[in-house]
Amino acid sequence: MERLTGLDASFLYLETDTQLLHVCALLILDPPADGTNYEFTALKEELGRRLHLIPSMRRRVHRVPFDLDHPVWVTDTGFDLDRHVRRLGLPSPGGPKELAELVGDIAAQPMDRDRPLWEMWVIEGLADDKVAVVSKYHHAAVDGVTGANMMAYLCDAEPGVRYPDPPAENHTESDEPNDLALAAEGLVRMPAKLGVVGMVPKTLGKLGGMVQRRRADKQGMALPFTAPRTPFNRTITRHRSVAFTTAPLADIKEIRAAFDVKINDVVLTVIAGALRQYLSEHDELPDTSLIASVPVSTHETSRHERGVNKVSTLFAQLYTDVEDPVERLRLIAEANVGAKEEHEVLGADFLQDWAEYAPPNTFRIAVRAYSSFKLAERHPVVHNLVISNVPGPQQPLYFLGHRIDSLFPFGPVFHGAGLNVTVLSANGDLDFGFIACRELVPDPDRMADAVHDSISALLKAAHAQR
Amino acid sequence: MERLTGLDASFLYLETDTQLLHVCALLILDPPADGTNYEFTALKEELGRRLHLIPSMRRRVHRVPFDLDHPVWVTDTGFDLDRHVRRLGLPSPGGPKELAELVGDIAAQPMDRDRPLWEMWVIEGLADDKVAVVSKYHHAAVDGVTGANMMAYLCDAEPGVRYPDPPAENHTESDEPNDLALAAEGLVRMPAKLGVVGMVPKTLGKLGGMVQRRRADKQGMALPFTAPRTPFNRTITRHRSVAFTTAPLADIKEIRAAFDVKINDVVLTVIAGALRQYLSEHDELPDTSLIASVPVSTHETSRHERGVNKVSTLFAQLYTDVEDPVERLRLIAEANVGAKEEHEVLGADFLQDWAEYAPPNTFRIAVRAYSSFKLAERHPVVHNLVISNVPGPQQPLYFLGHRIDSLFPFGPVFHGAGLNVTVLSANGDLDFGFIACRELVPDPDRMADAVHDSISALLKAAHAQR
Repeated sequence: MERLTGLDASFLYLETDTQLLHVCALLILDPPADGTNYEFTALKEELGRRLHLIPSMRRRVHRVPFDLDHPVWVTDTGFDLDRHVRRLGLPSPGGPKELAELVGDIAAQPMDRDRPLWEMWVIEGLADDKVAVVSKYHHAAVDGVTGANMMAYLCDAEPGVRYPDPPAENHTESDEPNDLALAAEGLVRMPAKLGVVGMVPKTLGKLGGMVQRRRADKQGMALPFTAPRTPFNRTITRHRSVAFTTAPLADIKEIRAAFDVKINDVVLTVIAGALRQYLSEHDELPDTSLIASVPVSTHETSRHERGVNKVSTLFAQLYTDVEDPVERLRLIAEANVGAKEEHEVLGADFLQDWAEYAPPNTFRIAVRAYSSFKLAERHPVVHNLVISNVPGPQQPLYFLGHRIDSLFPFGPVFHGAGLNVTVLSANGDLDFGFIACRELVPDPDRMADAVHDSISALLKAAHAQR
Repeated sequence: MERLTGLDASFLYLETDTQLLHVCALLILDPPADGTNYEFTALKEELGRRLHLIPSMRRRVHRVPFDLDHPVWVTDTGFDLDRHVRRLGLPSPGGPKELAELVGDIAAQPMDRDRPLWEMWVIEGLADDKVAVVSKYHHAAVDGVTGANMMAYLCDAEPGVRYPDPPAENHTESDEPNDLALAAEGLVRMPAKLGVVGMVPKTLGKLGGMVQRRRADKQGMALPFTAPRTPFNRTITRHRSVAFTTAPLADIKEIRAAFDVKINDVVLTVIAGALRQYLSEHDELPDTSLIASVPVSTHETSRHERGVNKVSTLFAQLYTDVEDPVERLRLIAEANVGAKEEHEVLGADFLQDWAEYAPPNTFRIAVRAYSSFKLAERHPVVHNLVISNVPGPQQPLYFLGHRIDSLFPFGPVFHGAGLNVTVLSANGDLDFGFIACRELVPDPDRMADAVHDSISALLKAAHAQR
């Protein structure tokens, strides 16, 4: 039994029927290419042999009576692998369009909170006998770094690896907590929670500093609430649209070298270019720059030991109002240096501390009011979208025995920011995952296409530079 | 704008994450057999051309502020067919086992309450180029009779029928109600709702009468709360297991003629036999008879004009403690005569009246408490399962242009009664749909198999009779 941190639990509190807070990953496996045979049952059994290595896949959330405290993780004594690993087929012709539709449908379904918060949907019927796997994890149970650790147990450096049978089960003994004790503990911890009051002046002081630095025209992090409105900055529905595409990492490295910037700067510039093109095509390009939230892992810097989510956020200007891609790249690179410094001033534990002490019901009531009154339409836009750039493994990997062709990540979308672009660099490729509220972005494939135009323009400039 | 009746709304109030109150139907279409070609887009377009004939497919639920009154139906001005009609593939080999798994997964997902409460999942990749369609409707929006009316618009007596384009849309004008007016109206209607108080003595009187008649050993309806406990009478989870099978209606008619009973008596006896065999195999057959709830349509007798659900319920002894199938059939036939009379004493509007006046939150709080405290495990079993027997059309039918091979219905399951058997007679067949909480009945296919043993035993006795 372990208590969820406030930040981990906040992903449960903030979830509603339409704002679903799980993350998805789409793996394309190519069994024919590595000479192994694919069989659903064998894949599921191999997963079963590895599960005991990943405790988070066996634990479920147990709520404290009356929500007097954050919930606790308990071992799921009724664990049943068949409940978590399911199978689907892809309609013909089994191409990326059909796959994107199906991934959108899977991402649009809420998860079962009475069980460990993950699902795996194996999709057969892809062209060339490939197999797709959509993994779904609740954000309360996984963040980028813990997710990567989890993948390490499910992946190998060679094909056809078969783990030995797990040691004899000792999971039948329950660690089911005593609800009365949990409630009492919650009451005892209550006065400590008043510490949240002290955080208000601290936070206001920090925000004030940010605004002043910005006024003094010092380079720094973009200010939230100053973003322009775009079609995807509205109240979201439960439906999701999905697109994905792959680009060679070598192209990004060539651009980086030509302009002496960081990989992350190039990635942000490429996405900014794609967004600019998409919005222009729809006649919706704002005069001022879009602002993206960029999650930053604080696993290295946080003083908190517990919890899966150790993350903070940067607000990044995307300079979508700048036409020239090279100028855009330079501005983004400069701003990123400033934003990183600013971010350190805010402190790695800023989000964690706030979330730890806010009473659970505040979150629940706030998000329901936000959605019912469609507040996303009424106040200034906080940020336009979330962009996440995750470095992945650079060698070929095999998932439960089969070669991974590509691995597309999809993050959550929020009221007021109904688009998420997550990029993973893996094995010489950049895999881009676009996910959005289907009503606000019915055609994310147009953004995915625009990624390639955006890279071409930068490459052309890089070649001209030489 | 039309207000939901209390009974229709109760299906919304009583729904939780695990007790999902929608109904499903699985249609197997055989396009090659009737010479038409199947194409997903064409099917979806044909549906689009017919939708304006079925207003309930265009309306969604709008809640009254603070639930001061039952919600109202409003036209969905943002209606988008693509949100309701989705496509999946069946994993190989595309047989009934894979199909049953997929139907269970579809039935286990809650519906989006912000949109009209129906979904259609077209499943490709069945053996012999057949196509399956899983229709999902919320029970608040449909009951047996209204569902059949709906199907009349989607089915034709010949293949390849193409409807003309619908008349020009006038659905863009909103009938979005004024929330303040709705709330005020709810307050005004409040005193009338106190009528519920008067129902208590009336109900107790009726229940007392039932018990007395039963004591006097008069034939009559089985008494609720006297059912034995079986593995499926527990608190349910969100997961569903599904099985389906078909038997010739001619066999049932032969049995009916041999023993001079009704079709419905034979159907109940067949299912009772299958349940007896299933429970014996699992070493769980109770000493006393199972009791089934059998929904009865009151569309002909109800004095209420509004609402989609006009239904009452009979409690039927299944005589699963009787080994001889012919004796069981005779007992069931006799009891059914008595139960019908008793049911008329209770009155067609019994459920409607109760549901109309109970405040919405009573239902919500009650069902949450029931599930959290696992009350289903603690009090006497009300009934063991729901059995529904629906007469369908007896001529060949074509669904959106394609021949219907079979049509399996699946009702909802409840805490304490985690199994539902629904039977539809159509085009010379009886189509049996079994749906259950997956944890309580992991193997409903064993029940479906047992249906055929049960019919064989009765047929043999019928032949011996001649």
